[in-house]
Amino acid sequence: MKCAILSVGTELLMGEITDTNAVYLSRQLKELGLDVLYRYTVGDNDSRLTEVLELAFNDVDLVITTGGLGPTDDDMTKETVTEFMGDHLVEHKETVDALREIEVERRHQFSQNNFKQTFLPSRAEVFATEAGTAPGFALEKDGKIVICMPGPPREMTNMFEKRVRPYLMQFKEGVIYSRILRLFGMGESRVEYEIHDLIEKQTDPTIATYAKPCECSIRIASKRKTEEEAAEAVDEVVTQIKEIVGEYIFDENDKDLVNVVGEKLIANGISISAAESCTGGMFAEYMTSVPGISEVFERSIVTYTERAKMEELGVKQETIDKDTVVSEDVAREMVEGLYAKTGSDICVSVTGIAGPSGGTPEKPVGLMYVGCRYKGTTVVQEVLTINFSREWNRKYGTMTMLDMINKMLDGREIPTNHRLK
Amino acid sequence: MKCAILSVGTELLMGEITDTNAVYLSRQLKELGLDVLYRYTVGDNDSRLTEVLELAFNDVDLVITTGGLGPTDDDMTKETVTEFMGDHLVEHKETVDALREIEVERRHQFSQNNFKQTFLPSRAEVFATEAGTAPGFALEKDGKIVICMPGPPREMTNMFEKRVRPYLMQFKEGVIYSRILRLFGMGESRVEYEIHDLIEKQTDPTIATYAKPCECSIRIASKRKTEEEAAEAVDEVVTQIKEIVGEYIFDENDKDLVNVVGEKLIANGISISAAESCTGGMFAEYMTSVPGISEVFERSIVTYTERAKMEELGVKQETIDKDTVVSEDVAREMVEGLYAKTGSDICVSVTGIAGPSGGTPEKPVGLMYVGCRYKGTTVVQEVLTINFSREWNRKYGTMTMLDMINKMLDGREIPTNHRLK
Repeated sequence: MKCAILSVGTELLMGEITDTNAVYLSRQLKELGLDVLYRYTVGDNDSRLTEVLELAFNDVDLVITTGGLGPTDDDMTKETVTEFMGDHLVEHKETVDALREIEVERRHQFSQNNFKQTFLPSRAEVFATEAGTAPGFALEKDGKIVICMPGPPREMTNMFEKRVRPYLMQFKEGVIYSRILRLFGMGESRVEYEIHDLIEKQTDPTIATYAKPCECSIRIASKRKTEEEAAEAVDEVVTQIKEIVGEYIFDENDKDLVNVVGEKLIANGISISAAESCTGGMFAEYMTSVPGISEVFERSIVTYTERAKMEELGVKQETIDKDTVVSEDVAREMVEGLYAKTGSDICVSVTGIAGPSGGTPEKPVGLMYVGCRYKGTTVVQEVLTINFSREWNRKYGTMTMLDMINKMLDGREIPTNHRLK
Repeated sequence: MKCAILSVGTELLMGEITDTNAVYLSRQLKELGLDVLYRYTVGDNDSRLTEVLELAFNDVDLVITTGGLGPTDDDMTKETVTEFMGDHLVEHKETVDALREIEVERRHQFSQNNFKQTFLPSRAEVFATEAGTAPGFALEKDGKIVICMPGPPREMTNMFEKRVRPYLMQFKEGVIYSRILRLFGMGESRVEYEIHDLIEKQTDPTIATYAKPCECSIRIASKRKTEEEAAEAVDEVVTQIKEIVGEYIFDENDKDLVNVVGEKLIANGISISAAESCTGGMFAEYMTSVPGISEVFERSIVTYTERAKMEELGVKQETIDKDTVVSEDVAREMVEGLYAKTGSDICVSVTGIAGPSGGTPEKPVGLMYVGCRYKGTTVVQEVLTINFSREWNRKYGTMTMLDMINKMLDGREIPTNHRLK
């Protein structure tokens, strides 16, 4: 099936926001074996929206829109699409009931214009929302289909996962099976270099590398008649890739490192605490995003000043004086002090220079020391990032903490020097 | 002048890369006072490219393309545009010379297909590149113009800055001046409802509301002959809006709340510490994203368990037993314990239920208590979010902490109940 993606919103044309929805949908439709021929962006303007719909349906059978379903006056995607598809709006009882329920539950009163969202095309298949108040829908006419979804990415992706993907399964052609390997400690261009021969000689499965902040991934995908056939082909390539870069892979099914670590801790009842400096709470923030982590995550002490490190963790003034606060010994004392205080099974620490200022020739921006104590052993790793930005360095520090925990839990060796390959 | 942006590249339709070029160009054209009516994305396919050019020129006078100017076989933007505009390709001597020069300088030999890039439309105004090997160009016919630029963002932005913007200056119309007000505590639909009359009666300045996670913004923009005129018109509307929803506005020039707060703390040398529970370090993570915050940000104690709250902050077991750990009294004891330990000028705390599980009828998911101590006074606010997700609740808690600090610094009143309007 041939498709087009239509993003609606004047704020997109103004460049005020980046259209991540279009990228997400492009990928999702490709997974389903549907061909995306065009993407369009128009403002909240009904004549231009109509014009683009007309053009699109010259070539495609399905148009997916995002945006313009909100409660305000400039939101007119639903009205325009309904008219274009020769339908009219009627009040949708389930949606009204859902809004009323939220009002009671949340002791909140929606304003009258929220109820504009309860009017939907009479022939539509309605996609209820779990993440907002604007429902989506699919509307068909003469074999052509428009699917409308809300614009806020969180609402849109939630609706796509729960409702639209299942709806689209009826149009799926062939079977695509894919796996995504996730790597930390090796950059995308190096990964691509290492597995270049594999990439070159493959047409199916396809192998693609992607750079993400502080990590990278490899996507292996195959389109075959049956899922078994595709899975077998993919698995064979995965085995070959693991022989080359296996030590950098932390997950083979697109799981975030923090979830890999969090789930291991929870499954084994291993308690954890952290002492953070340059990551500024990011480690705790990551850990506590894992559902169920409260069973094992004890606390994180974010000690941003020297005084806080001494008072909270017992770091000694003389240790700081000896080799500054960004040093192996301070990272070690932070871990030991944290353990003395909490007794957590795993204690982890980080001290470093996130930048952009504060670097010296001896201690440059991007230098960090990450400590980890588990089963009586404390290891400190020196990390030097390829300094991109403060945000990058904080994230790289957080990822290194998680990577060390992961390796220590698995009983793998940890080099005292960590450099991105 | 009315414009369209056309991004060319199959990799865009596959969702392999995000189209940052389109966002960049949208902003740049807006700055020049040129109206972007459409954005299109097509693959490297000449018939679809031609079709979109035809459609675009029904409504616009200028189409800017990015991508498809490279040396490989699938790059065909130049060829398609040249034919569409009734021109033909000729070898462009300056471009050949430039390539030869790079060959000598870099001791590098270009492959034959690099020289495909030296053929350009005979009538084109050529934009030499400083950042790559593909030149861009503008080609006119009957008052309609196509500008073609390379796809790699670094090459494109460089060419736009150095060559295309100066070329476009001839079409510049008026001046656009805009301001963005940022609000916390009132949702987008309510904001729009409150200022509906203003929005309705305005054509210039335009007023638009936008929802963002846990906050919203209002953009006021005017297009006039001079910047002074536009600024005056915008400022007048800003004053009117402030009369209606002023108490929810935390910044009038698109600054994040964390930066508003951070800068006030730094400017006045006011030290700050935090005691976090359900936000899991997010408050610290936000604060430490502010450049220079290490001068005032002392520490954050992320106490995820009851034991940690008692050990670190002196929260009493009996207080927890009385009304659970998610209660006004626990938030107060967290603040007081933090102050006893740190003596920071501002001490802030949060305890709550981020979800998705852990809620009860009396203490539902999304309920939080936020405490703030400043100048001897402790205020605790009860917050109940319109629960969307764990992530949303954590962020809402963090934003409420920042909002309370901001109001206490300004000496503004803080209600003990916080409900999103």
